[in-house]
Amino acid sequence: MTQAEIRDGEAALDFDPSERVDATLRFVGKIRTPWARGNCPKNVARAREGDMSDMYVELDPVFAQGLEGLQIGQGIMLMYWMHEARRDLITQKPRHSDHARGTFALRSPNRPNPVALSAVRITSLDIETGVIGIDAIDCFDGTPLVDIKPCYTAIDTPPDL
Amino acid sequence: MTQAEIRDGEAALDFDPSERVDATLRFVGKIRTPWARGNCPKNVARAREGDMSDMYVELDPVFAQGLEGLQIGQGIMLMYWMHEARRDLITQKPRHSDHARGTFALRSPNRPNPVALSAVRITSLDIETGVIGIDAIDCFDGTPLVDIKPCYTAIDTPPDL
Repeated sequence: MTQAEIRDGEAALDFDPSERVDATLRFVGKIRTPWARGNCPKNVARAREGDMSDMYVELDPVFAQGLEGLQIGQGIMLMYWMHEARRDLITQKPRHSDHARGTFALRSPNRPNPVALSAVRITSLDIETGVIGIDAIDCFDGTPLVDIKPCYTAIDTPPDL
Repeated sequence: MTQAEIRDGEAALDFDPSERVDATLRFVGKIRTPWARGNCPKNVARAREGDMSDMYVELDPVFAQGLEGLQIGQGIMLMYWMHEARRDLITQKPRHSDHARGTFALRSPNRPNPVALSAVRITSLDIETGVIGIDAIDCFDGTPLVDIKPCYTAIDTPPDL
């Protein structure tokens, strides 16, 4: 990446966060979607307008036992690795915005640790094969899966103070 | 870890997920709390009964510019690394439960990729020092921080289908 690839108002760190390894991830599967660069919906609301039978999780079968107890209809959080993201952008100017903001104030895939997060609902579940149908998601086909967690409002919604 | 440390109904993988490295994390700070093994609240609702001035995020100052645009009162998702967790448990029996469930059906810290997630609200913000006051969190003092994201209901709440 070169400085030329920084848009007006954006800033990059003077180091690449990937150079220091504090912990390691082992991908547990892949997310399957009809989306690739060029046709990817701008957000999950748009993705929900697509055909949901084309969006599912393929869990690596060695982890399939970990799905026991999940139910069709349940809300789950998917954590996934934005493998095409850039890790050194610290302020960014989204295309729809007139000013730059800090990376931690944005949901941009470009961040020091490009782990994305999306709440979806289970539409089908095959524990033996590890295939989980989901309502919709807006990531590219083949995006590596990091984790699946059940949604709990008490943990996933900030409290009223 | 030995088989003896598995409770009735629990199952471990026959490999350690940390042995294969698919991606790497660079911690971006630490979460400061009054909690350690022995006094840690069972959940975030209990943690909110504590003194919130004792709970805050210390972002590594090299990333502080990434906080620009965040506001006091805003809801944020904290992603953090459960560094004392075990990565090979694939079914688990929580102490309060009478049966084991798959790891992906639980919010247990023990999981192939022990990245935890908690929605909190910003109570104070010092962008220069990278110190962010939060309402409450139930992790141990010194827990490594992986990411901060703004909460968005459309992404963080599963849809009604």
